[in-house]
Amino acid sequence: MARIPYKIYLSEDEMPKRWYNLKAVMKELPTPFIHPATLKPCTAEDLHPVFCKELVDQEFNTTDQYIDIPEEITEYYKTYRPSPLVRAYSLEKMLDTPAEIYYKFEGTNTSGSHKLNSAAAQVYYAKKQGLTSLTTETGAGQWGTALSMACAYFNIPLKVYMVKISSQQKPYRKAVIETYGGKVIPSPSDTTEIGRKILAENPGTGGSLGCAISEAMEVALKTENCRYVLGSVLDHVLLHQSIIGEETRIACEKYDINPDILIGCVGGGSNFGGLIAPFVGDKIAGKNNMRIIAVEPASCPTLTRGKYAFDFGDTGKMTPLIRMYTLGSGFIPSPNHSGGLRYHGMSPIVSKLYHDGYFEARAEEQSKIFDAATMFSRSEGILPAPESSHALKVAIDEALRCKESGEKKTILFGLTGTGYFDLAAYMSYNDGTMTDYIPSDTDLEKGFASLPEVQVRF
Amino acid sequence: MARIPYKIYLSEDEMPKRWYNLKAVMKELPTPFIHPATLKPCTAEDLHPVFCKELVDQEFNTTDQYIDIPEEITEYYKTYRPSPLVRAYSLEKMLDTPAEIYYKFEGTNTSGSHKLNSAAAQVYYAKKQGLTSLTTETGAGQWGTALSMACAYFNIPLKVYMVKISSQQKPYRKAVIETYGGKVIPSPSDTTEIGRKILAENPGTGGSLGCAISEAMEVALKTENCRYVLGSVLDHVLLHQSIIGEETRIACEKYDINPDILIGCVGGGSNFGGLIAPFVGDKIAGKNNMRIIAVEPASCPTLTRGKYAFDFGDTGKMTPLIRMYTLGSGFIPSPNHSGGLRYHGMSPIVSKLYHDGYFEARAEEQSKIFDAATMFSRSEGILPAPESSHALKVAIDEALRCKESGEKKTILFGLTGTGYFDLAAYMSYNDGTMTDYIPSDTDLEKGFASLPEVQVRF
Repeated sequence: MARIPYKIYLSEDEMPKRWYNLKAVMKELPTPFIHPATLKPCTAEDLHPVFCKELVDQEFNTTDQYIDIPEEITEYYKTYRPSPLVRAYSLEKMLDTPAEIYYKFEGTNTSGSHKLNSAAAQVYYAKKQGLTSLTTETGAGQWGTALSMACAYFNIPLKVYMVKISSQQKPYRKAVIETYGGKVIPSPSDTTEIGRKILAENPGTGGSLGCAISEAMEVALKTENCRYVLGSVLDHVLLHQSIIGEETRIACEKYDINPDILIGCVGGGSNFGGLIAPFVGDKIAGKNNMRIIAVEPASCPTLTRGKYAFDFGDTGKMTPLIRMYTLGSGFIPSPNHSGGLRYHGMSPIVSKLYHDGYFEARAEEQSKIFDAATMFSRSEGILPAPESSHALKVAIDEALRCKESGEKKTILFGLTGTGYFDLAAYMSYNDGTMTDYIPSDTDLEKGFASLPEVQVRF
Repeated sequence: MARIPYKIYLSEDEMPKRWYNLKAVMKELPTPFIHPATLKPCTAEDLHPVFCKELVDQEFNTTDQYIDIPEEITEYYKTYRPSPLVRAYSLEKMLDTPAEIYYKFEGTNTSGSHKLNSAAAQVYYAKKQGLTSLTTETGAGQWGTALSMACAYFNIPLKVYMVKISSQQKPYRKAVIETYGGKVIPSPSDTTEIGRKILAENPGTGGSLGCAISEAMEVALKTENCRYVLGSVLDHVLLHQSIIGEETRIACEKYDINPDILIGCVGGGSNFGGLIAPFVGDKIAGKNNMRIIAVEPASCPTLTRGKYAFDFGDTGKMTPLIRMYTLGSGFIPSPNHSGGLRYHGMSPIVSKLYHDGYFEARAEEQSKIFDAATMFSRSEGILPAPESSHALKVAIDEALRCKESGEKKTILFGLTGTGYFDLAAYMSYNDGTMTDYIPSDTDLEKGFASLPEVQVRF
């Protein structure tokens, strides 16, 4: 067979026409969302005031393994997809490893990450439902950018509650969102009750993702024909992100690539859940025995040191109770540079799969992540996002293990995005001022203390 | 025939194996470089102390229409090429034009532009010649980034003299260059004679591209086994950039696309010269009658208001005399946001083709450029570089003209790069503080006054 090219691009015709719904193949389902007032499972009706109707339907769909991607979304996907599956020839050479390394690169669109895959779908359904505005939150800014792009394309106004400290540290992210027409409001703000309350208690606060979520949800609830959209964690977001896994699967089949190890970074879990979907689906069905590894920051060790428990998704405790791996909604991650992975909880689907032993998890320290990122950039040319570099760090470790053992394994990882907006982090790494932080058990206990009492009742 | 896809990617096998050497097909050649001391044409030997030997040979090659791309460079090209030829379906829809719009997008690599095409070639030849270090200058930083990436790949040390004001305004560009291992020196610096002289005369100066070129050349001349590399203007740079035009030609042939209008932005002229190479070659041979348009900033109107004259390429007047369109090496362009187009001169090949009437030139104002850039980003998703937006501005104008006339023309433009490092410019546009500047005739006269006396002798 001919040599595998550096970059495998599927043609438009080969693109997946369906999303992969993991819940239809899981042997046990994640625990449903619990309404904090009634302590009963949430119904679709409970969620309709907050989320778009069709997305709620997807959230509750546990039967259809495949869900058709609407034509309009496919058309939008074609403006930036398929994304390339890249053979890391240069990295392999630099590492002098017998392993074959591949990465699915989601950073070729302007949002710089995979986030656009779900943004496109959510905005389309909002437009279809006749909504006239949307709200969301953004931390590092990738989700806000992605949603702003999709809103520009489908022509619907957007308010983005951006963690205040991020909006100050990343004025350029704010500028991109505004170029695409999104309105950026630094959070906490005086535009919401929860924002005013938090400001009154902590006038100098730089905000948090949990707080920004609370503000965006409040506005959606109080504004006519407006809904809130979330870029990670939820099942329908993982569903949309399965386009990553499906494209990867099709490319692997076309070129007869059989990954022994599949690696992704985890924050809220959406890119990871999307990448592994068809592969872990086959694993559940006993069709493969792939090693799957989730990599998280040592500073926010949700899977490796968190509890599998009921918790709120936000600081303001406005969400339903979600059974997931969590550090507690009161856990405040140290300000490391992987903003996209700094979340106290984890996708319920990813949490359940982990709980049931379908994959391993590792926590990695920031400075090691940047060692790997620099090595990668110098060989493969791409400047990776710190978040994505968690996955490539472990891919490099596994490739070096192959070098020792002489094994010719096939390693595939998800490179979720580029680091063009993370250069302050690269600067601190380059000039040697970057520090690592691992929370002590006492730090973690403080976070766990914020878990809702309701735990004991289940 | 099936619908043309959004993005046309050639396969690795379809990639051009040869560069296109315009000088072999031009009816009249550009005037050779003139040695400022002897006032005779420069010989290859004159240039060897400054430039890599093989590059000098390419600079003097007027006979071979095609020059083989070495295998090692092709391998490197494959890490980020072929670049996509994109059908701008969304922009067409937004403009409601009967025209078909295509763009060749060179911004998918981390340097964010086409610059890497020549950087790859120049660094390879330097390595092959056994050189142990390289120097260069960078203004906006794209060339410095590209060269730093190529130097990391081929493993050769690099010093980048970066216009001081740019290194201060764009610390993140500096961080990228350093991540790839390049050493950044703000210019003017005390590391060179010319730098110390300029600093003594103007202690507070923010530097200029011409001054940075002088410093980098001085270091190359004084350091053993070191050479200087330049990212634009020179004939061998245009040769390497012909990969853009060749890929475009092959993709057009494959999909039966026949551009009526071909548009590119011009600064030093390398991307424009590379894009148009095979097309203007055919035009010279009478095989097509394509309209070709070069677009430059109204603030630095080299083609539209400059003189076709002998001039130095740098402020320090260290280069040979080059016959080109120029505003005079003493012309100081206003600080607009298209740093990559702020050069007093123009590629001798591009200058000669313009002089001989093979294409038109237009000068556009900055605020209009950003109107077009914003419209483009909201429809096509890509955030364009201000430089590239000059080309897309005119593409939009031509498409709107088609809308009026009802003509279904095919418009193809070069989108040279992304604007991720130009967000200060987008911010000033978004908040309404962006201003336009058009030099007065008196401003231009001051620049022309710096032209060397030698003019009259030719």
